[in-house]
Amino acid sequence: MDTLKTRRSIRKFKADEVSDEVLNPLFEKAFRSSTTGNMQLYSVVITRDKAQKEKLAPAHFNQPAYANAPMVITFCADFNRFTKWCEQRNATPGYDNAESFACAAIDTVIAAQTFCVAAEEAGLGICYLGTTTYNPDQIAEVLQLPKLVVPIVTLSVGYPAEDPQCSDRLPISAIVHQEVYKDYAPADIDRIFAEKESLKENQQFVSENQKENLAQVFTDIRYTKKDMEFFSQKLMDFIRKQGF
Amino acid sequence: MDTLKTRRSIRKFKADEVSDEVLNPLFEKAFRSSTTGNMQLYSVVITRDKAQKEKLAPAHFNQPAYANAPMVITFCADFNRFTKWCEQRNATPGYDNAESFACAAIDTVIAAQTFCVAAEEAGLGICYLGTTTYNPDQIAEVLQLPKLVVPIVTLSVGYPAEDPQCSDRLPISAIVHQEVYKDYAPADIDRIFAEKESLKENQQFVSENQKENLAQVFTDIRYTKKDMEFFSQKLMDFIRKQGF
Repeated sequence: MDTLKTRRSIRKFKADEVSDEVLNPLFEKAFRSSTTGNMQLYSVVITRDKAQKEKLAPAHFNQPAYANAPMVITFCADFNRFTKWCEQRNATPGYDNAESFACAAIDTVIAAQTFCVAAEEAGLGICYLGTTTYNPDQIAEVLQLPKLVVPIVTLSVGYPAEDPQCSDRLPISAIVHQEVYKDYAPADIDRIFAEKESLKENQQFVSENQKENLAQVFTDIRYTKKDMEFFSQKLMDFIRKQGF
Repeated sequence: MDTLKTRRSIRKFKADEVSDEVLNPLFEKAFRSSTTGNMQLYSVVITRDKAQKEKLAPAHFNQPAYANAPMVITFCADFNRFTKWCEQRNATPGYDNAESFACAAIDTVIAAQTFCVAAEEAGLGICYLGTTTYNPDQIAEVLQLPKLVVPIVTLSVGYPAEDPQCSDRLPISAIVHQEVYKDYAPADIDRIFAEKESLKENQQFVSENQKENLAQVFTDIRYTKKDMEFFSQKLMDFIRKQGF
């Protein structure tokens, strides 16, 4: 389990396929994790086929972590299967709402992350593609997702072809609160982000982007207000369109 | 890592406290897991104090898995810390929207689930409390969560005082789709849910509740349309109130 302490996301992969014989024991572990009322409100779609992977590429902006991977796995919140079961049993489902979506989305990430832990322990590399919540509509079209199914996270999966360093993390004390949330005073913020701001690679990032500081790289380039608002609208429209 | 294959949620705990010396190495692992743009969009609030635990109890309907635990840990989506950093650096944050909430909520569950894996490997027992998304407003009040902070999942944590059986799970083939989502025909639904429906404990559940079948136990008792709609409204109102 020391894997957990030293893990890194992998964005360059060997060409080798990952077979179902390798994947299924990982899914077995993933689907054993906690789930709301034991309803298992998720489905998984595997993309290995080259033509399918091409079609899905624009939804993930064809980012290197996507393009380099031999496969991706899309974990979807799924109330379709459970609802169909209810309807077939003369039971009246009421799962077309925000609370149901929240339960399913949480179930989905729990399963996905357990998959990641098991995969990394088995020598595979993974990378989460944040683009999933940007372009869920395009992903749903390619994967033919029906109503009550929403893609939540996508993983690039494969055998690592790189050995990157661990990225920096905030101090634990910056994240853990005892009994009540202790809000951050200006001096706390300075202390918490000091190490991140002092790292050579982050300082390089700032100068390459001709910004005053690292925070501006986030707000002006990586995660701008304009983009976040655009994708918010798209995401909410899509969740509603899927029937939640 | 065989823990993952045989894990069970724990709802009865020994009285023993779980110290920070035990918890911190687990948090170290949890916070090493994947996070959107390395922003670590989560905070954790530990509840050990008896008075605090009393105050929080109604939000979790004082369910046995809550009442029996020596402590609970609330994992919260948190864009407050990151936003404060941006503001303090003359950067203009745009993280008061749905997409930002989605990123933070996903980050939060990834960290929480890695914590669970590490905790179970270390001999602790955990149980997710689904009540967190039912009563986020009450939880936020007790934990004093500021704007841009929303509780997503709560874990009961402690040393196990029971040794329950693994609960049933759907077959892997019911959840994994190759290339495209293959929607479920009536015969698929019957096959997928057959084992669950045949289990003695589930049949007992049906007869105790005087229902025709297991699906009706879910729709009429455990997760009713009326409740899900009530909690949906509450959840959406609260997320908006927190500034997203």
